[in-house]
Amino acid sequence: MNIVVLKFGGTSVADIPKIKNIALKIKLEVEQGNKVIVVVSAMSGVTNNLIDLVKNTSDIPPYSEYDTVISTGEQITSALLAIALEKISIKARSWLGWQIPIVTDKTHGKSVIEKIKVDNISKDLEINQVAIVSGFQGVSSENRITTLGRGGSDTTAVAMAASFLAVRCDIYTDVDGVYTTDPRIVKSAKKLDIITYEEMLELASQGAKVLQTRSVALAMKYDVNLRVLSSFEDLPGTSIVKEEKNMEKSEISGIAHSLNEAKITLHGVPDQPGQAAEIFGTLAQHSINVDMIVQSSSINHEVTDITFTIPETDLIIAEKEIKELQKKISFNKFTSDTNVVKISVVGNAMRTQSGIAKTMFETLAGNQINIHVISTSEIKISVLISSDYYELAMRSLHSAFGLDV
Amino acid sequence: MNIVVLKFGGTSVADIPKIKNIALKIKLEVEQGNKVIVVVSAMSGVTNNLIDLVKNTSDIPPYSEYDTVISTGEQITSALLAIALEKISIKARSWLGWQIPIVTDKTHGKSVIEKIKVDNISKDLEINQVAIVSGFQGVSSENRITTLGRGGSDTTAVAMAASFLAVRCDIYTDVDGVYTTDPRIVKSAKKLDIITYEEMLELASQGAKVLQTRSVALAMKYDVNLRVLSSFEDLPGTSIVKEEKNMEKSEISGIAHSLNEAKITLHGVPDQPGQAAEIFGTLAQHSINVDMIVQSSSINHEVTDITFTIPETDLIIAEKEIKELQKKISFNKFTSDTNVVKISVVGNAMRTQSGIAKTMFETLAGNQINIHVISTSEIKISVLISSDYYELAMRSLHSAFGLDV
Repeated sequence: MNIVVLKFGGTSVADIPKIKNIALKIKLEVEQGNKVIVVVSAMSGVTNNLIDLVKNTSDIPPYSEYDTVISTGEQITSALLAIALEKISIKARSWLGWQIPIVTDKTHGKSVIEKIKVDNISKDLEINQVAIVSGFQGVSSENRITTLGRGGSDTTAVAMAASFLAVRCDIYTDVDGVYTTDPRIVKSAKKLDIITYEEMLELASQGAKVLQTRSVALAMKYDVNLRVLSSFEDLPGTSIVKEEKNMEKSEISGIAHSLNEAKITLHGVPDQPGQAAEIFGTLAQHSINVDMIVQSSSINHEVTDITFTIPETDLIIAEKEIKELQKKISFNKFTSDTNVVKISVVGNAMRTQSGIAKTMFETLAGNQINIHVISTSEIKISVLISSDYYELAMRSLHSAFGLDV
Repeated sequence: MNIVVLKFGGTSVADIPKIKNIALKIKLEVEQGNKVIVVVSAMSGVTNNLIDLVKNTSDIPPYSEYDTVISTGEQITSALLAIALEKISIKARSWLGWQIPIVTDKTHGKSVIEKIKVDNISKDLEINQVAIVSGFQGVSSENRITTLGRGGSDTTAVAMAASFLAVRCDIYTDVDGVYTTDPRIVKSAKKLDIITYEEMLELASQGAKVLQTRSVALAMKYDVNLRVLSSFEDLPGTSIVKEEKNMEKSEISGIAHSLNEAKITLHGVPDQPGQAAEIFGTLAQHSINVDMIVQSSSINHEVTDITFTIPETDLIIAEKEIKELQKKISFNKFTSDTNVVKISVVGNAMRTQSGIAKTMFETLAGNQINIHVISTSEIKISVLISSDYYELAMRSLHSAFGLDV
């Protein structure tokens, strides 16, 4: 069976005319002889409205109930799309997470998929019935509805593609592919025809919002033939592949930025073993992801400064926990700064080509942009800078790495 | 265990402040030592919006998908109420139809409950956790979501009360009980403290919209201690009981009216056996409920006229089928009239007291109101009249039967 998975995001199913338009796109796939699994998000705006309902009820909702509320958005879209397909004589039915089932762990609000049963949907595919899967949701071993976190429908789509050994997994969205950088900030941003899983993974985790990071990691793990393309225009999009075919391309694939950053510095931390473990252990206990970390070299081997970044949305709770920590660790004081942006340059070629860090730092220095923190991976360099300069930084880096042409 | 079932309708959970208010009401029940099962409707307006979404997608939606869409309203309310209860430190969790499960047949859109599993919720009740049940929904043997028809949450509540042997089933709504007639039409309408199942059944099926007819029939069958009361005022409401305790009350309990009526007359039907069976069999095949029927006595034993009423909403399909029938039965012509209203007087005392029909017909005649069709049951007399006179008819009957005082 030639199984294809098609995923449509919130803007692609934003209203009934758009849902009917999607139905026509699916009809074409069916007519080409493909067995089609569709994954849908909630109609755009719906999930936010549902979250508001929950927040207005309680600031500390049980996440099992939170999931029960917000999973309804995808439930509605999947059934409406099945209705739209039946209307144009294409056999279809909706599948909720618990009906398939997509079994997850019990971490409500950001569950991890443990197992997908293929038997039920396979029977549908055999009789050429389109399976419309509600994205973003699963069911726990306790029979409660779970959700996979914001953007989780991408993960649903990739997981379905992996489980059903789909020949391709097409992510339809409101942009026509993955760009070298955010086109709203850098006018000369170019669409990429192709990008490797690892590059996409870095771009996604560094703030490019085209795909949920987890979905890219999953696609890489199971070698899913992933594509990002526009649901409004008939364009080829961007393919996400195992290895870069085009060796002639510029060394950098893209430049990402993240505004949701807060910098925290602990001043005068005793320079003794175990201090860092105490600090970051406490933050981890509260599910706060620490990203960049830098420790100043201790001059007199007595005290040091530790600077790190966390999501700005976690700052209030982090500050509370750090205040508590002062009872255990006698650092002098701590400061925080939310007026920072992380800029990352990503490229698979970094593995083999040197000089990229040099180009990056020179370019920023040439524009009088001060670097607060630096972090690197095999295929990425990230810098934290003042948010006043982030557009300038992105434009000048885009140009310096030859991405404008 | 002292189990109580509380049902809250759409206006009682219309917004977050109202949901929080309901939570306080439930808290009182818990504090009195009761084990509480709550059944909730969708927030008012939500179900209609969902139906509009479906209708805008297709005029012939598969009802399995229709149910998947419209059941989300109750799903949201049940989880929000659980959140509101947890917020005030009352243990609670939401239960969807498929989680309990409430197993129904496969008649999507108007399913019948076959079985309710009590084990899962019983465990909750044992640890004093409030069970918040999504009304109106169930699950079929095919694991698809089903719904019980408009007003189906009443039926969910009564079915839960019957299955859990609840000591009472309180239906909270936006009126403070059952009235002798519609207070919007007859200013002197009085609230009834008590009414029998059978009277309530007749009133509900004759157009009084306080309770879904099916729920009353179910309460009668399982002897559920049913009460209708206001969620906004602290008043005793109306109890629906097996036998009338107060023998002194006036013979008539209430006067109902139904505007959703259409009258059809088939003129010159051959006066031969099997003609009526042919006509009503055809309508039954299309799920059209025929209510009042009258056949004129045939003068020359050759032809007769047959008049009957159906819901006005079924008129278009009925007219189409009757036109088809003319190929089989050679009646002269048919006429239809939607400018009619059915008025019913209901009272358990009719079983033993005569003269009620006489009072009814005299009252209408005294006001120059012509009667088109009459039908009766043991405890009810219904007449079909021109809709021009229905308010006058209701007021004068309310007065004639001594209900004003």
